[in-house]
Amino acid sequence: MNPRIEAYQARIEQVLDRCLSLPDAGSARLREGMRYSVLGGGKRLRPILVYSTGEALGAPLEHLDVPAAAVELVHVYSLVHDDLPAMDDDDLRRGRPTCHRAFDEATAILVGDALQALAFDVLAHDASGPASATARLEMIRLLAHASGTSGMAGGQAIDLASVGQKLTAEAVENMHRRKTGALIQCSVLLGATAAGIAPGAELDALKRFGADIGLAFQIQDDILDVEGDPAIIGKTAGADTARNKPTYPSTVGLEAARSRAHALCEAAIAALAPLGARAQPLLELARYVVNRSR
Amino acid sequence: MNPRIEAYQARIEQVLDRCLSLPDAGSARLREGMRYSVLGGGKRLRPILVYSTGEALGAPLEHLDVPAAAVELVHVYSLVHDDLPAMDDDDLRRGRPTCHRAFDEATAILVGDALQALAFDVLAHDASGPASATARLEMIRLLAHASGTSGMAGGQAIDLASVGQKLTAEAVENMHRRKTGALIQCSVLLGATAAGIAPGAELDALKRFGADIGLAFQIQDDILDVEGDPAIIGKTAGADTARNKPTYPSTVGLEAARSRAHALCEAAIAALAPLGARAQPLLELARYVVNRSR
Repeated sequence: MNPRIEAYQARIEQVLDRCLSLPDAGSARLREGMRYSVLGGGKRLRPILVYSTGEALGAPLEHLDVPAAAVELVHVYSLVHDDLPAMDDDDLRRGRPTCHRAFDEATAILVGDALQALAFDVLAHDASGPASATARLEMIRLLAHASGTSGMAGGQAIDLASVGQKLTAEAVENMHRRKTGALIQCSVLLGATAAGIAPGAELDALKRFGADIGLAFQIQDDILDVEGDPAIIGKTAGADTARNKPTYPSTVGLEAARSRAHALCEAAIAALAPLGARAQPLLELARYVVNRSR
Repeated sequence: MNPRIEAYQARIEQVLDRCLSLPDAGSARLREGMRYSVLGGGKRLRPILVYSTGEALGAPLEHLDVPAAAVELVHVYSLVHDDLPAMDDDDLRRGRPTCHRAFDEATAILVGDALQALAFDVLAHDASGPASATARLEMIRLLAHASGTSGMAGGQAIDLASVGQKLTAEAVENMHRRKTGALIQCSVLLGATAAGIAPGAELDALKRFGADIGLAFQIQDDILDVEGDPAIIGKTAGADTARNKPTYPSTVGLEAARSRAHALCEAAIAALAPLGARAQPLLELARYVVNRSR
């Protein structure tokens, strides 16, 4: 990573901390569960994509804070719920006990629910920047669509239905594009929308870029699940295999998975041509997505 | 109930059916779980409040369909999650097996998550009627606020933290206002916002009305938990007592609970004075809220 990325990571940590100050969250336990799950960890890839895309298109950072926080809140809520005993039953997340282990199951369910509501709350309340009501509605539309049955929740449903199944590579890609890819693509589009992009070649390029790195990210996740170091990835390795879940490597083999991830990265980079030199920070992110070790 | 209410109930059933057509929800199980949980039951009080308030202020029904559906989707998601084994562990809802009983726990978690996303999705996409982008943002703001830590999720957190505790009547009221009252008040305000209400005496009157009937509704719910007929209320009676949860009757006694509910109903009705004769349908609803047997 580079200093620009580190600055984004430090910035989003502060923004999320503010979003989660919640002086009256009902119970202290709910507030602490939300803060524990969101703060103090995570790669923050989605906020980094919002900031990088928005800055590439000329938006000041303070206009990007709220969409960056909103997409991370949705991402974290999905992790908290996916980790529950009835779902993936994971004990470790970002190197620490998962929310339901550190607190309890009921709190973890509620933490996820409240984080989802908070994501839409901060977007709807955002009065920073010149974003018109229309642009703010569009951001809510993007986030709701990427989170629901068409995106993340639908992908998770495919994931649940696929345990023990033999899927085609295309079916695994469809699952990955929805479960992970939709929210990553959404991050790119949130940054673009906050920067006031108009429909056209640049927006189409960013859509394609987001879709490709979203899928590449999840394929790399599958690869790390096979060969990653638990001390580095911060969660149990081999978990997908142990759960008998179809993954990209288990479907096409590790080598083919690696080359698919790299091909998607190159396609994502090629897609950015209409943006010219401004796309440089996004190119770096595409390479990070497939070369990361956590 | 009267023919107007029955017409609203039939109408919202169709609107919800359309919202849940979801040709590509990921898995058939997720789609069926969402449809099972939302369709074919329920009093539909919240949509009825959206329609009644909106019509009282002159809005055509087709401008009220989407906010009416959105608030019901949030309400149903909260029921699905509240019924989970880690929460209230309920087997029966609206006279049928709860979602996690009819499907499974993982599906029920996902059904709730996807319904919440869908609620914001339909509001953000709503292109019906003349509601400006500003009014639509305001509706999203109202729904997110009523759903999150300041409202429903925060109230549920107090509920979880209160098991086995002795609360004051004020503390029980705070819990009820958030857990149930916030979304009921939100329903009134969604109808008013969709009808294009401006800040002023009428909006203030509706806020007060919504807050009072919201609390009255939950007190009546507590009363029915003590003395209701399971065959009529469609869920297990005595459940709160069995779980050692503080309720309004357990805190102040059944008679005092009844008279508080009636006093709130009268206060709600009195609050509507600025609306004059147009408030008649809302008056009927206030009386229904405290006289209902299910």
